[in-house]
Amino acid sequence: MQDHPVAQAARAAPLFDRIALIGLGLIGSSIAHACRRAGLARHVAGYARSPETRETAAKLGFLDSVHDLASDAVEGADLVILCVPVGAMGPVTKEIADALKPGAILSDVGSTKGSVIAHTAPHVPQGVQFIPAHPLAGTEHSGPEAGFAELYDNRWCILTPLPGNDPAAVARLRKFWEGMGANVDEMDPDHHDLVLAVTSHTPHLIAYTMVGVADDLQRVTNSEVIKYSAAGFRDFTRIAASDPTMWRDVFLNNKEATLEILGRFTEELFALQRAIRTGDGNMLHDYFTRTRAIRRGIIEAGQDTDLPDFGRMPVRRD
Amino acid sequence: MQDHPVAQAARAAPLFDRIALIGLGLIGSSIAHACRRAGLARHVAGYARSPETRETAAKLGFLDSVHDLASDAVEGADLVILCVPVGAMGPVTKEIADALKPGAILSDVGSTKGSVIAHTAPHVPQGVQFIPAHPLAGTEHSGPEAGFAELYDNRWCILTPLPGNDPAAVARLRKFWEGMGANVDEMDPDHHDLVLAVTSHTPHLIAYTMVGVADDLQRVTNSEVIKYSAAGFRDFTRIAASDPTMWRDVFLNNKEATLEILGRFTEELFALQRAIRTGDGNMLHDYFTRTRAIRRGIIEAGQDTDLPDFGRMPVRRD
Repeated sequence: MQDHPVAQAARAAPLFDRIALIGLGLIGSSIAHACRRAGLARHVAGYARSPETRETAAKLGFLDSVHDLASDAVEGADLVILCVPVGAMGPVTKEIADALKPGAILSDVGSTKGSVIAHTAPHVPQGVQFIPAHPLAGTEHSGPEAGFAELYDNRWCILTPLPGNDPAAVARLRKFWEGMGANVDEMDPDHHDLVLAVTSHTPHLIAYTMVGVADDLQRVTNSEVIKYSAAGFRDFTRIAASDPTMWRDVFLNNKEATLEILGRFTEELFALQRAIRTGDGNMLHDYFTRTRAIRRGIIEAGQDTDLPDFGRMPVRRD
Repeated sequence: MQDHPVAQAARAAPLFDRIALIGLGLIGSSIAHACRRAGLARHVAGYARSPETRETAAKLGFLDSVHDLASDAVEGADLVILCVPVGAMGPVTKEIADALKPGAILSDVGSTKGSVIAHTAPHVPQGVQFIPAHPLAGTEHSGPEAGFAELYDNRWCILTPLPGNDPAAVARLRKFWEGMGANVDEMDPDHHDLVLAVTSHTPHLIAYTMVGVADDLQRVTNSEVIKYSAAGFRDFTRIAASDPTMWRDVFLNNKEATLEILGRFTEELFALQRAIRTGDGNMLHDYFTRTRAIRRGIIEAGQDTDLPDFGRMPVRRD
């Protein structure tokens, strides 16, 4: 096995002595794998609320220690990362607050930042640097078995530092995410929430809705929907297969921005619907031509593959 | 190069002596490639309206002959397939009608069936079997360079035979599509249009809308949308990069069914929007759990890959 370049650099002195991961689903377990790949910590400790998850994590062996209590996991850690659904960030912070080491960095991976800050910051003790973060990475799979070291490679991680943050701590967290393979950006929490409402939260809600509609119809059977899904629908089902708890919390915690973008979406949808009804082919053609350019931009920015159909593996039924 | 099993069987006697493809974009060129792979015809002739497309097709060499006139291409053909946008099906049929060989099968690949039948059937001469068809396959790329022999492998092709069709001709067309690698189904044209409104047309319109919204916003920049697209949005952009002319025609020609499903979609979206506004987490969680099961069904039916993120190739920026 070849050494990861970051690992070579880190061997002499890992970036952190001890990292604690609170939550061991897709995101937490992938951080653990990537930590190991890059040699970013001497010790990676982990905690999950469910005994099954802890057991699976222990069996898979991506952690140096698995703990039954969150407060035990964070003891002595220089970096604690909350990898739980955004609705659980506040309560879990309260649970670990007293055990946090003075001078530690506390961060998170939540998809919404405004509400996480509002619910978490009040519980953070003096002397602990709370630096919110959000790695824009994930798949439709969840749980500790779903994690892999490459999840963050070439993805973005957005930090939304708070006014009181020590610049040296922010720089260290940035270095950590670069070690995960990610590109790091900084942003104001409110702006983060609006950007994500556009690029993630609203698209997810729409995908969930479309899949729900298909599932509900009486005149088109479920088996027809499944059989003929390759015509476009199946792309929506991948997004709509994402973790229900995580996404419930996202919508409840980024309510304003999501509702704003949804309003814009509905407005636009009605305009297209009207063009269909009135037979305005030029309007439709112009619209569809404009949206093609965006795809080109995404491919040029290295954020997706240009292979037809995402380079899907040929699917065979044997 | 190993022989395709269908090719071995067909070598003695190809299914058709001469096939003519009218339209040489992604769909037409892929049919030509797959015809050759499976040895389904002694000769495959092709026509495209644009001289550039004809030139490219000739250069790529996937046809036995390229013609400047549609009526020349269909001369002596036992099977003629119209591979043009659905809005062009009627006019092109009128153009070739007099040149069609008595006893020939005329088919198409249109994504809408009711309107194609309404616009095409009146021009079909006596003695020609018009059997509408729709292969549910495609990618976001278009043009003759985009075609490949595997496009139809394990995809569905829906035939919507007409009351007067000769069962032997329908069986022969079915055999042809099986030779393309597809699974073949038969359906009533109206039901086809409703099923496709659910599995394809409405999802495409929604994807176009979402991408249009993102492009329009002033407060989130275009470069932010592109940079952070991996969070969900980029899946929509792939669908919204599909051929604008094809899709304009689809919506204008499957107006009723699309508007009906759009109505259902909006209703459902408003229910979810209301749940977000009122903070009804249980409703959201239940909804998101239900949609997950559909994805499972699609993977079990062999209609998509279970690899995370569609098995996207790792995208690197060098």
